[in-house]
Amino acid sequence: MSLKTDAKLALKKHRTETGLFIVEGRKGILELLSSDFKVVRVYATITESELIDSACATYQERTGNPSPIVTIVNEKTLTSLGTLETSSAGLAVARMRTSIDEASILAVAQSAYVLVLDDIQDPGNLGTIIRTADWFGITHIVTSPTTVDVYNPKVIRASMGSFTRTCMTELPLESLLLTAKEKNIPSYGAFLSGTSVHETRFEGNGFIVMGSESHGIQEELRKQLTHEITIPKHGHAESLNVAIATGVILATLRK
Amino acid sequence: MSLKTDAKLALKKHRTETGLFIVEGRKGILELLSSDFKVVRVYATITESELIDSACATYQERTGNPSPIVTIVNEKTLTSLGTLETSSAGLAVARMRTSIDEASILAVAQSAYVLVLDDIQDPGNLGTIIRTADWFGITHIVTSPTTVDVYNPKVIRASMGSFTRTCMTELPLESLLLTAKEKNIPSYGAFLSGTSVHETRFEGNGFIVMGSESHGIQEELRKQLTHEITIPKHGHAESLNVAIATGVILATLRK
Repeated sequence: MSLKTDAKLALKKHRTETGLFIVEGRKGILELLSSDFKVVRVYATITESELIDSACATYQERTGNPSPIVTIVNEKTLTSLGTLETSSAGLAVARMRTSIDEASILAVAQSAYVLVLDDIQDPGNLGTIIRTADWFGITHIVTSPTTVDVYNPKVIRASMGSFTRTCMTELPLESLLLTAKEKNIPSYGAFLSGTSVHETRFEGNGFIVMGSESHGIQEELRKQLTHEITIPKHGHAESLNVAIATGVILATLRK
Repeated sequence: MSLKTDAKLALKKHRTETGLFIVEGRKGILELLSSDFKVVRVYATITESELIDSACATYQERTGNPSPIVTIVNEKTLTSLGTLETSSAGLAVARMRTSIDEASILAVAQSAYVLVLDDIQDPGNLGTIIRTADWFGITHIVTSPTTVDVYNPKVIRASMGSFTRTCMTELPLESLLLTAKEKNIPSYGAFLSGTSVHETRFEGNGFIVMGSESHGIQEELRKQLTHEITIPKHGHAESLNVAIATGVILATLRK
C-alpha cells in the first residue's frame, strides 16, 4: 500500500471495494485514534510523527488492536494527494463500521432521539449536522440511501471528529418510519409550516426527520410522520439551511 | 466592459477599486433585481435572457434607476469565468452599498437586535449567518474589519439572496461595544460557558456577538460585553459551528 493508492479512498468506488476510508488532518486523526474504529495505517509528516506515534501506542494499549503502521511522508506529497487545500498533518486509513439494522434503530428510538436525514446532498451540511447532533447528545443518525456518503472526506472533515462518536446507519426511510408509527414511536418532521417547534411537546424519544436542501422531506415520507413541526419565521429568507434548522430543533427539544 | 473584466470582481482588490461586486446564479440575480441595490449590468445565457430582461424592466419601473444592460453570453464562457462550479444562469454587476456609521448602528440597537460578528473567516459561514439572520428578522449585521468580505462571491451565494435585505456594516467592534455599554445598550456574547441561552432574559434589543471559528470572541471585546451566554452541551463535540450557534441563539431570543 502507498499513500497514492490510499488517497484514492477519497472516492466512494474505492471505499466500497475495500471497506476502508480516510481521515485527514491532525484533529481528525487524533479523534480517530481515540475511538473504537479499526485504524489500519497512518501517513504523517515528520513534524507530526512523534505525536501520532504516541497516539498509536495509546490506541493499541486501549483497544488491544495492533498499532497502525505509521509511514513518514513529506508535506508536499501529502497535500498533492489529499483532499485538503492547505497542508495537512497526515492521513489515516480506517475500516468503515458495519451498519446496524432497522430493528436496532427502532429499539434505540424507543428511549432516545434518533436523527433521520432524507436526501441531504451537501457534504459540508452532513458533516456539520453530525457535529451538531454530537453537541446535543444524539448518538444515532439514519440517512436515506440518496444522502451523500458519510465516509466522504468532506463529511468526515466537517464533522470535526464527531463522526467517531456517532452511529451512522443507511436505511430505506419509508419502511423505518412506517414501522415506527405502528410501534407508537413518534416522528417529528421539519417543514416550512406546521406546529411551532417551541410549542411542540417532545416526548423524550423518537425520530427527528430533516429533508433535503432543495426539496425538503419527500411526500411519501411525510405520510408516515406523526408530527409536522416548523421553526417560526420572523423575517424574509425563503428557508433556513438544513444544518441550522437541525441545530434549532435539537436545542429546543433539549431545553 | 466585458464579462472577462467583470468576472475579476470576484477578487476584493477589484471590488475595492471599482465599488462594484458580482452576483451569480438565477436566484441571486432575481433577488438583486428586486432589491434597492444599484444594478449596473447583467450577463445572461440565451435561455435565461427573457426572464432576466423582464426582471430588469420591473426593476427600472420600481426603482426609477436605468435598466441594467443585459448581454447574452454562452454558458461555457460564463462557467469558465464565474466562480460557480456548475453552469450558471448569469452574472450581475452591482454597486456596493455605502456603510452606515457607529452612531446609526447604536440607534438601531436601542430598539432592535443587531448581530455582531468578530473575525468570521469562512465565507460559507458568513453567508449562512446572513441567511439565518434574515429568517429571524435581524436587519443589521456589524462585522469586524478582520471578518471575510461580505461581497465575496461565496458569501453572496451562501446568503441565498438574504444579502439584499440585510444592512451590513464593517466597524471596529471594541469602540462600538464600549459606547453601547456607556449607553446602557445590552450586549450578549456567545461563549463555551456562561448563562444558558434558555435562561437569559433578552430585553428586546442590543447586540448579539459571535466570535471566530477557531478562537471565539477576542479577550479585548469580552471585557465590553454586558452578558456572557452559552448553548448547553448534552454530548461530546468540542464546539458548535458558529452559524449553528447563531441560529440557536436567534431562535431562542425570538421565542
